[in-house]
Amino acid sequence: MAVGSGELGTLHPVAGVRMAAVSAGIKKAGRLDVVLFELAPGSITAGVFTLNAFCAAPVTVCKKHLATTQPRYLLINTGNANAGTGEPGMQAARQCCAALAQAAGVSEAEVLPYSTGVIGELLPAGKITAVLPGALRLLQADAWDTVARGIMTTDTRPKAASRQLTLGGKVVTITGISKGAGMIKPNMATMLGYVFTDAALSASEAQAAVRAAADKSFNRITIDGDTSTNDSCMLVATGRSGAKIAELATAERKQFHDALNAVFVDLATAIIRDGEGATKFVTINVEGGATTQECLQVGYAIGESPLVKTALFASDPNWGRILAAVGRAGLAELQLDHVGIWLDEVQIVDGGARAATYTEAAGQGVLSKSEFAINVKLGRGSCNETLWTCDFSHDYVTINADYRT
Amino acid sequence: MAVGSGELGTLHPVAGVRMAAVSAGIKKAGRLDVVLFELAPGSITAGVFTLNAFCAAPVTVCKKHLATTQPRYLLINTGNANAGTGEPGMQAARQCCAALAQAAGVSEAEVLPYSTGVIGELLPAGKITAVLPGALRLLQADAWDTVARGIMTTDTRPKAASRQLTLGGKVVTITGISKGAGMIKPNMATMLGYVFTDAALSASEAQAAVRAAADKSFNRITIDGDTSTNDSCMLVATGRSGAKIAELATAERKQFHDALNAVFVDLATAIIRDGEGATKFVTINVEGGATTQECLQVGYAIGESPLVKTALFASDPNWGRILAAVGRAGLAELQLDHVGIWLDEVQIVDGGARAATYTEAAGQGVLSKSEFAINVKLGRGSCNETLWTCDFSHDYVTINADYRT
Repeated sequence: MAVGSGELGTLHPVAGVRMAAVSAGIKKAGRLDVVLFELAPGSITAGVFTLNAFCAAPVTVCKKHLATTQPRYLLINTGNANAGTGEPGMQAARQCCAALAQAAGVSEAEVLPYSTGVIGELLPAGKITAVLPGALRLLQADAWDTVARGIMTTDTRPKAASRQLTLGGKVVTITGISKGAGMIKPNMATMLGYVFTDAALSASEAQAAVRAAADKSFNRITIDGDTSTNDSCMLVATGRSGAKIAELATAERKQFHDALNAVFVDLATAIIRDGEGATKFVTINVEGGATTQECLQVGYAIGESPLVKTALFASDPNWGRILAAVGRAGLAELQLDHVGIWLDEVQIVDGGARAATYTEAAGQGVLSKSEFAINVKLGRGSCNETLWTCDFSHDYVTINADYRT
Repeated sequence: MAVGSGELGTLHPVAGVRMAAVSAGIKKAGRLDVVLFELAPGSITAGVFTLNAFCAAPVTVCKKHLATTQPRYLLINTGNANAGTGEPGMQAARQCCAALAQAAGVSEAEVLPYSTGVIGELLPAGKITAVLPGALRLLQADAWDTVARGIMTTDTRPKAASRQLTLGGKVVTITGISKGAGMIKPNMATMLGYVFTDAALSASEAQAAVRAAADKSFNRITIDGDTSTNDSCMLVATGRSGAKIAELATAERKQFHDALNAVFVDLATAIIRDGEGATKFVTINVEGGATTQECLQVGYAIGESPLVKTALFASDPNWGRILAAVGRAGLAELQLDHVGIWLDEVQIVDGGARAATYTEAAGQGVLSKSEFAINVKLGRGSCNETLWTCDFSHDYVTINADYRT
C-alpha cells in the first residue's frame, strides 16, 4: 500500500550528472540493485549521515573519502546494508570503490559508496565489482526513473522530485531521488537521498544547504521511530548552469533555497507516503512551542505512538490517544488549558478537554481521508515545527514479520 | 493472545482488607466494572501516579484526597478513563467519592477514585453511584480473582500475585492485583496496580516502598511506549499482622522488601504477558552501562522498536534490528567493539559485529520460544537494568484499530 498517486512528474536532467542502474544479483536475479552516478569534474558534493552509533561500513568510508577530496562517482547498492559487518565490511566497501576507481580512471577516494538492505550480512563485493564496467558504459544524462527504482528495498515505488527556476538569467535545475520505507526516523538524513543541481555552490555553501534542507525534510519524518545505520543524504552542485548562488541577489538566493528545500521535502514525504504498510499520510503541525525541541517532542510523541497510528489506520478519531501522546511528551509545566488540537480544521481539544463544537462525525470525516493534518497549538511560545508520518497497518506487521525470512 | 499460563496461584487474604466487584453497566451490561476495596481503620496507603500532563480527573482527585487523610475506600471503575474530560470530569469523580462516603459513613476525602477505559468520554457517575450500596453489602475478605477481573479493560485475563512470609515470628501477607494491556509505558506506576499487606508501615515507609518497588517493576515495562493518563499504583499496609517493619532486624526488613518487590514484578510482568496481541514475553537485560539512565535508553530503544518487535513476532533472529536500536539509543561515544548482545545464551553480536560463533539456527532456536531474554553488555560501567516487553503482532493492530469503534 502507499498513499497518493506516486507519479514522478517531469524529472529534469542536471548538466554534469550521468547515471545508470544495473543488476548484480545481490538479492534477487534480474532486479536492479547497483546504481552509479558520475559527477562532472569540479562538482561540489556535501552530505549528512546517520548518527546511529552502529553506522554502516559504507557510511564510514564515505565520510572519510569526502573529507579527502571531491567525489567523481557515487556507487550505491541495494539488497545489503553492509552494516554490523566489522572490518570485513570495511574491506568490502573499499574493494567496490577501488574497482570502480580503476575502471573509471579516478582515485579510490573519488568514489563514495552507499549500501541499503539487510543488516549484518557481508556485502558480496565480487558481484558488484563484476557489473561496474557495464554500468560505466550505460551512463546517461536522463535515467532518473531507472536509478530511483535501482535503490529501492521495501519501497513499493520510486521516489524523485525536480524543480527548475531561472536565476540571474540562467536556468537552474534541481533533481533528486530518495528511497526508504522502514527503519525511518532519520537523524541527520535519510537512508539514501541524492539531490543534484547545476547551480554553483562552494563546499561550505553546499554543506550548509544540505544540512538546512535535510533538517526540515528528512529529519522531520518518522515511520517507525527506528533510525537506520545507513542514512545518507547528499547534495551535488555541478555548477554547469553557470549560476553562482553566492553572487545572486538576496531574493534570488532565497528562491534557490526555497526550491532546494521543496525538492528535499518532496523526497522526504514520498518516503512517508510509501511507508511500510502506509494507508494514511499525516502532516503534524505543532505551533506555539517555547522551543523547536519541544515542538519536535510533541510531534514525535504523536507520530510514533503505536496507539495513535493504529487509530489512524482504523480512521478512528480516537482523539484521547492524541491527547495522551501530547501529555507524555515531557514538556515541563504544560498548561493544559492552553492546548488545542485539530484534525485539519476540526477542533477536537480545546483547553485540554474535548472541544464543545466537536462531533464524532466531523472527526470521522477528516480521518476517512488518505491525507490530513494533526494540528497542535501549545500556547507556550512562538516556535513551530512540521513533521510527517503515516499509520500502522496490518501490512506494516506483515512486511516486517516477513522481511528477510 | 497472551504468553504463559496466566494461572494466579494461591491468593492469600490480607487482614484488614475487604473487596467486592459489581456491574454498573458502564460499557456493557452484565460485565463487572466497579471494584471496591475497604481498608481497616489505621491502614496506611501510599501511591505513585502517572506523569502524563493530561492526567485523568480521578488521578487529580486521588492525589488531593491522599494528601488530606488516609483513605478507607478505593473505588475503581473500568470502561471509562474519565481523562480529557475537564471540569465536568472532576465533578463526576468527586460525585462518586461523595456517594460512597455517604453510604459508608466516612468523609469524601477518605475515598480514593480510579478510572480506566476510553479517554475523553464523560464518566457516567450516576451508574456508578447507583451500585455502591450493593457493593458495600458484598464486601468480603477473599475475592481477589473477582476484583482482578473487575478492573480489566482489553486485558484477556486477571492479574494477581501473592506472597507470605514470617517476620519477627508473625505471618505477613502481601497480595496485589493489576491490569493493563495497552497504552503501557508507565512513568511512575502502571494503570492500576494495587498491593495490600498486613505488615505495619509508616506513611513515609509506605511511600518509599511503593516508589522503590514501582521503579523496578511497573516503571520497567513497555508494550507500546504510550504512557497512560491514568496510571496509578497503590500500596496499602493495614498493620493487622502485627509485624512492624521498622522494628525488624535488617535481614528481615530486606526479606519483606524482597517479597514486596517480587509481588510488584509479578504484577508488572503479568501485564506484559497479556500485552495487546502479545505472543512473546521478552526480558531485556542491559549490563555495564555507565549510568542507570543509559541502560534504560538502550533497553527502551530495543523494547519499543517496531522493527525489533515485529521480528520477535516472526521469531526471526533479525539481530541487525537489535544492533541498530542499540546504536540509535543516543549513548555518547559508544565503543562498538565493547558491545555484546545475546539471545538467552546465544551470542549474536561480539565487538559490534556478528559473533563468529553465531548461527541462524541457534538464534532461531531462542526466538521460537515464547519467553526469552535479550542480553546487552555495553562495557561502559557497572550499572545494570532489567525491563520487560512483548512483541508486535497482527493482533496488536487488530485490537487497537478496532477498540472503541
